[in-house]
Amino acid sequence: LGHRIAVIPGDGIGTEVMPEGLRVLEAAASRFGLDLRFETFDFACWPYYERHGAMLPPDWQDILGGFDAIYFGAVGWPEKIPDHVSLWGSLLQFRRAFDQYVNLRPARLMPGVRAPLVRADGTPYAPGEIDMLIVRENTEGEYSSIGGRMFEGTERELVVQETVMTRHGVDRVLRFAFEQARRRRGRLTSATKSNGIAITMPYWDERVRAMAAAYPDVAVDQYHIDILTAHFVQRPDRFDVVVASNLFGDILSDLAPACTGTIGIAPSANLNPERRFPSLFEPVHGSAPDIAGRGIANPIGQIWSGALMLDFLGHREAHDAIVRAIEAALAPGSGAPRTPDLGGRAGTADLGRAIAEALRAG
Amino acid sequence: LGHRIAVIPGDGIGTEVMPEGLRVLEAAASRFGLDLRFETFDFACWPYYERHGAMLPPDWQDILGGFDAIYFGAVGWPEKIPDHVSLWGSLLQFRRAFDQYVNLRPARLMPGVRAPLVRADGTPYAPGEIDMLIVRENTEGEYSSIGGRMFEGTERELVVQETVMTRHGVDRVLRFAFEQARRRRGRLTSATKSNGIAITMPYWDERVRAMAAAYPDVAVDQYHIDILTAHFVQRPDRFDVVVASNLFGDILSDLAPACTGTIGIAPSANLNPERRFPSLFEPVHGSAPDIAGRGIANPIGQIWSGALMLDFLGHREAHDAIVRAIEAALAPGSGAPRTPDLGGRAGTADLGRAIAEALRAG
Ligand SMILES: CC(C)[C@H](C(=O)O)[C@@H](O)C(=O)O
Ligand SMILES: CC(C)[C@H](C(=O)O)[C@@H](O)C(=O)O
Repeated sequence: LGHRIAVIPGDGIGTEVMPEGLRVLEAAASRFGLDLRFETFDFACWPYYERHGAMLPPDWQDILGGFDAIYFGAVGWPEKIPDHVSLWGSLLQFRRAFDQYVNLRPARLMPGVRAPLVRADGTPYAPGEIDMLIVRENTEGEYSSIGGRMFEGTERELVVQETVMTRHGVDRVLRFAFEQARRRRGRLTSATKSNGIAITMPYWDERVRAMAAAYPDVAVDQYHIDILTAHFVQRPDRFDVVVASNLFGDILSDLAPACTGTIGIAPSANLNPERRFPSLFEPVHGSAPDIAGRGIANPIGQIWSGALMLDFLGHREAHDAIVRAIEAALAPGSGAPRTPDLGGRAGTADLGRAIAEALRAG
Repeated sequence: LGHRIAVIPGDGIGTEVMPEGLRVLEAAASRFGLDLRFETFDFACWPYYERHGAMLPPDWQDILGGFDAIYFGAVGWPEKIPDHVSLWGSLLQFRRAFDQYVNLRPARLMPGVRAPLVRADGTPYAPGEIDMLIVRENTEGEYSSIGGRMFEGTERELVVQETVMTRHGVDRVLRFAFEQARRRRGRLTSATKSNGIAITMPYWDERVRAMAAAYPDVAVDQYHIDILTAHFVQRPDRFDVVVASNLFGDILSDLAPACTGTIGIAPSANLNPERRFPSLFEPVHGSAPDIAGRGIANPIGQIWSGALMLDFLGHREAHDAIVRAIEAALAPGSGAPRTPDLGGRAGTADLGRAIAEALRAG
């Protein structure tokens, strides 16, 4: 039985890195005998909005609902359409409608990538020494659609927005994170801010304590988000699984790859762990209008996201092989072409082909 | 005419670093002929709460309201009292009641302090090359007291908390930040998240644009908070003034000193710029229960905060002299005693005395 995968390249460099993601997935399919069936869609991007006045067709839930996974590029073209319109009209809709309540983002120090951090004694970290997994709540919390504006246009103008956390929503993402910690190095850090955000965040802490009781084998600690960002910079090798609310997870999952120098290549998975709805896999980077159209974007974020997709579809071996192929291409002296962000002059397709070949070579 | 200063050492290492702050202020007073009148208070700490069942006496607004400034140590003793109780019962009350709507936090790469960051080419930054000022909104936004819990103790349990931004509150902190940018290097960065937090943050962006029109001489840009934390790590030397909401400013003003290796020594000012109420000056670090009672805390954050206080009271020269004395003590080869966080074995008082002497020596 094959896997039906919806492909949505989106905006900007999304359309440039997607072909490389597909190239590597095809290579994985032929090496591991997988049956991957791709279908490409042209919505969730500015050109579609320009023609239709909406980011998505009205029946998008029916169209996408039957797929096993969504392989996504990037969305957003701020010059033409405000980000909160394009994002809330597409990606954030998917997360909600398909109940993708876990956003998973690994951050790993890769070989051949220069990290901007050094240890307290001035020495660099070694590849693999920084290796964390950010587990972000992805459907509720600070990203709410409740609120509004009052006294508009006057001196008394004010705006309010609710943060909403439910026991259902908090517990399920915590449970997922504890399970991940159990499978990894058995450590879980909770991001909080209960000293300042004194209504919702103490509740988050309570639920962490309650869940911890069911996982006595997992070592739990918690830090307020302000000092936690400082610890990421000062002692990034201390962290294993980090679980966070929607907003805090958003911040930490950009900061963590920045600490490992991999922000341009980091992957992410938006999961519905129960598989009632399709999960979505996308690079952490956005549509990058500043370099779009030049064919120089680094495709590794897209390729690595494809690996996470295969893992979720049950093909752990294929995932591992793709990650090894990425590491082989990045390794100093590999001779693989390097895009400008990696200090080279190669194009998107050159690097994509090199990784596909490394994968085929095994 | 003298300045009346309320001294509140608070909890933990607050009580250990405060004497050194006062020592240096006395030295500054005698060198510059200032008349500083200190009065010490024993509230806003766990021992007071233990005796009185509250963090502050009922008439604290009358007691403190007549002072020109509050010189504060640290508050919080989580083993005995939850942080959201101790903080909302003291520091966060001061900020609100005394309308200290600007929280000002400089982050500067100091000599002799090891920063955990290196440039993309692997070389270290030079002292002074990273030099930013975080201007944080300090009274409203995400730190709100509106919200609550429903269906308590059941599976349907949920909790909500409002973020509230007013035009009055947003505009005044933006204006302050633009004025600072004008006096510094003429650059202002706004922290936003209007692509995800799609009700309050687009409003923040609107007000930034409106204010920017009145400051054509200031170069303005904006970043979403997630990628902004990444930029702090990757290119910290690019930033001058950074203006942010209460929560985002809280995060950035811990991250920025972490990037310069100065989190243990960073100062902060909670300002009521109109001087209708006393402003409050405190180190960024907290009460540090893990090292409290051992006399090894670094007093520089407290001392530097004292310098900010003198600046606000109109004594720029005295401020500059204290900062120079701190830099002289930190400089490699200065021979000044170093506390453990700086790699030495000296005590809090040793370092405080060295800075006071450097100040007297001029
Ligand atoms: C202790 C806490 C409530 C406080 C804050 O979040 O404002 C602190 O982190 C700060 O930055 O002064
Ligand atoms: C584009 C934006 C709405 C989105 C988010 O904040 O969730 C992005 O930053 C992400 O992390 O996927």
